[in-house]
Amino acid sequence: MSVSAVPAVPAVAADPSVCAPLAVLGRDVTVPLVTGGEVTYAALDYAASAPALQRVWDDVAAYAPYYGSVHRGAGYLSQLSTDLFENSRTTVAEFLDCREDDQVVFTRSTTDSLNLLAAALPAGCEVFVFETEHHASLLPWRDARVTYLDAPRTPDEAVHTLERALADRDPYGPALVCVTGASNVTGELWPVRELAAAAHAHGARIVLDAAQLAPHHPVSVRELDVDWVAFSGHKLYAPFGSGVLAGRSDWLREAEPYLAGGGASRKVARRPKEAGGGVDVEWHDTAARHEAGSPNVIGVYSIAAACKALTEAGFDELVAREQYLIRKVREGLAEVPAVRVLSLFGDDAPRVGVISFVVDGWNSSHFAAALSAEYGIGVRDGLFCAHPLVRTLLGGETDEPGECGAPEAEPGEKSLNAIRVSFGAGTPDEHVERFVRAVKELVADGARWNYRTGDGRCVPDTSAAA
Amino acid sequence: MSVSAVPAVPAVAADPSVCAPLAVLGRDVTVPLVTGGEVTYAALDYAASAPALQRVWDDVAAYAPYYGSVHRGAGYLSQLSTDLFENSRTTVAEFLDCREDDQVVFTRSTTDSLNLLAAALPAGCEVFVFETEHHASLLPWRDARVTYLDAPRTPDEAVHTLERALADRDPYGPALVCVTGASNVTGELWPVRELAAAAHAHGARIVLDAAQLAPHHPVSVRELDVDWVAFSGHKLYAPFGSGVLAGRSDWLREAEPYLAGGGASRKVARRPKEAGGGVDVEWHDTAARHEAGSPNVIGVYSIAAACKALTEAGFDELVAREQYLIRKVREGLAEVPAVRVLSLFGDDAPRVGVISFVVDGWNSSHFAAALSAEYGIGVRDGLFCAHPLVRTLLGGETDEPGECGAPEAEPGEKSLNAIRVSFGAGTPDEHVERFVRAVKELVADGARWNYRTGDGRCVPDTSAAA
Repeated sequence: MSVSAVPAVPAVAADPSVCAPLAVLGRDVTVPLVTGGEVTYAALDYAASAPALQRVWDDVAAYAPYYGSVHRGAGYLSQLSTDLFENSRTTVAEFLDCREDDQVVFTRSTTDSLNLLAAALPAGCEVFVFETEHHASLLPWRDARVTYLDAPRTPDEAVHTLERALADRDPYGPALVCVTGASNVTGELWPVRELAAAAHAHGARIVLDAAQLAPHHPVSVRELDVDWVAFSGHKLYAPFGSGVLAGRSDWLREAEPYLAGGGASRKVARRPKEAGGGVDVEWHDTAARHEAGSPNVIGVYSIAAACKALTEAGFDELVAREQYLIRKVREGLAEVPAVRVLSLFGDDAPRVGVISFVVDGWNSSHFAAALSAEYGIGVRDGLFCAHPLVRTLLGGETDEPGECGAPEAEPGEKSLNAIRVSFGAGTPDEHVERFVRAVKELVADGARWNYRTGDGRCVPDTSAAA
Repeated sequence: MSVSAVPAVPAVAADPSVCAPLAVLGRDVTVPLVTGGEVTYAALDYAASAPALQRVWDDVAAYAPYYGSVHRGAGYLSQLSTDLFENSRTTVAEFLDCREDDQVVFTRSTTDSLNLLAAALPAGCEVFVFETEHHASLLPWRDARVTYLDAPRTPDEAVHTLERALADRDPYGPALVCVTGASNVTGELWPVRELAAAAHAHGARIVLDAAQLAPHHPVSVRELDVDWVAFSGHKLYAPFGSGVLAGRSDWLREAEPYLAGGGASRKVARRPKEAGGGVDVEWHDTAARHEAGSPNVIGVYSIAAACKALTEAGFDELVAREQYLIRKVREGLAEVPAVRVLSLFGDDAPRVGVISFVVDGWNSSHFAAALSAEYGIGVRDGLFCAHPLVRTLLGGETDEPGECGAPEAEPGEKSLNAIRVSFGAGTPDEHVERFVRAVKELVADGARWNYRTGDGRCVPDTSAAA
């Protein structure tokens, strides 16, 4: 059975007010199906890594021949590259609507950004984090006293839970709240502005994990009144190894440099032996303090290019388009009684294009493998690096997870992990339409193959063909 | 005066046995001269960042449309990307001639690799490092007791200095020696095999900073018998934000994860409140332990592509070509009495294409700016993130350095920092010939402009024209 032979499920009516998807790399890539033939790949794992915008790639390709060492290079290309690198900070600061004295530090990813902030906490700082966070937000606070807050079931409950915890703390010293803007599991938006107000009312600071928010929604540091924001290039259509931590400079300036090395150091001198030996180091107190080593100029520039591309394409229109795709997927899944969509805040919660679900009677890895092998659709299965949240949403019924989540399990047994479909500015209608159709067909007709073999891969096991 | 109007200095005779340079991005880029017109840019700052090999760029461009999230993605492109990412480890391990049970950890740079190793030192580990190292090797050992060794003046002295220091240590516990393979200032090779033997004879381990060695010379972990090796993609013709730490797995496996987050964690679970709350984390004990967050797949793949390209081009021939270029530069500079080449180990020391020098009567920043503005040549001036070494080589006469080294200084005054010219597999003869000619002309005739204004940039200051 080939995909093209399947009659299309009636789709949500096309909305003429919705803009076209942005061009992304890989939009014409075809992949083989185990049922024979090839189909255009439907990349529906944007929440893990989004494809590069064509515009980002074009900007990187145009710059690449002019790449040069930044900062102390005397040559023309070094000066050009230095300008491009430092101007990228300004572009990112504008994209995030930063305050005038905020710092933009370039990191490798959101995980790196939050580990940097964790290393910059003042002595005695307490950290408050909901159990519902991605591991990148949950785990970096290794040297701090961390209070893990129970999963709230409404945005209001989130705010009240945080307020109570902050008010109860003793001693009443420095504190940091870390919260996601949009869940990497449910896609639901968190009440960031209200949580920031609660944090500040109780003398705490707040960092926004915008890894899943920034690619899908404009983020204003000023309006949300968060102290820091972190995001990754690879989810923002700029998969070249860079990320961002932007916000208040004071804790960053006072902290030990994140990495020790060149670029972060202003002056290094050996101390005379009579003074005990060793070296004296003066560190920078700008963003360079935490950016030791040669910076990833192409990665940084690609993020700036993505910020510009999203802004110039009209971010509000992209949001409208994504909401239209979300409706298509959710309405389609709602027609399949065997599908249970995971949610903390309920059907009416505002959300981005990240939707996780389980299918009664299916192992999620098996289901995800079938979507790939029979329909050319790339989703993700597992616990999505948010084990406590997914466990809570599944009612505690997860198995021992493998890397970032997926257990090995028998086909057909009760699902112990989940399937996540996610999309964004580059997703054409056809991808989500194909996805909804595939879910319906798989539930109705079963899969063609046993995907349990081959480590959950799309390798058909003919010995167990259905 | 345009560059093309300058009669060529007689060059070292072309050696027909020397291979052609490898194609790099930017080889046709032209830059403006303050004297009017444009000239092909001569990138002679390879020691800071080398241009991308055309082959590396082509490989990245061919892969980019197939980019997908690695590890738990169920889709075809995720599987393809996961294979490509993990196969890159194998390619790097082969390139470095690693032992069978060595780990290849992907980092962002050499600086990052050495900071990772510093975070993985066993309790009580002592560190031994020569003062001649780059700050990336000198500074990361923040939690260890560090012995800084005086600059040796011969390779033998280096070995004896290390042996004495290791023998003298008390208590006789775990120790690590960190040494460069090729100096980022003098280009001189260090006696790595002998230092490794000395380290091991005294119960210490050794990490090789191969940032400047790996792009210029085959590195065999087995033959050199080093415990770890670190290098950067951006110096190895793969400027996409990744680096490598490869070597013994035991310390890495036993250490706390470098970054805390997804990908490094195998299982995360909230601890029951009656058990004190908090979270329990099981970490991976493979390379993933230290690679939390979504990996820089393109960066990693670009390094593997560079390893393959250098190997397939014939690394020995590239070495021969580079030695030929080194001879051209050194013989040319030797004809200018005002030029003093910086050296620890003397004229006969084996070296890579990294040469630093000062020019009597010139401020180095001024000289470097003139090379750029009047000849389209990109070099670097400053202290090259190796302040103690450059200070030693200049006889302690450096000024307060700016970022990574360069002080502001009056034109014409005594040089307080140095100029570095560096090149590699993509450098055509014409670049080093133009460089030698430019040095001779600048010394003989002076510069056309005062380059002190405009922050050392190629902005002509007509008020001070020569």
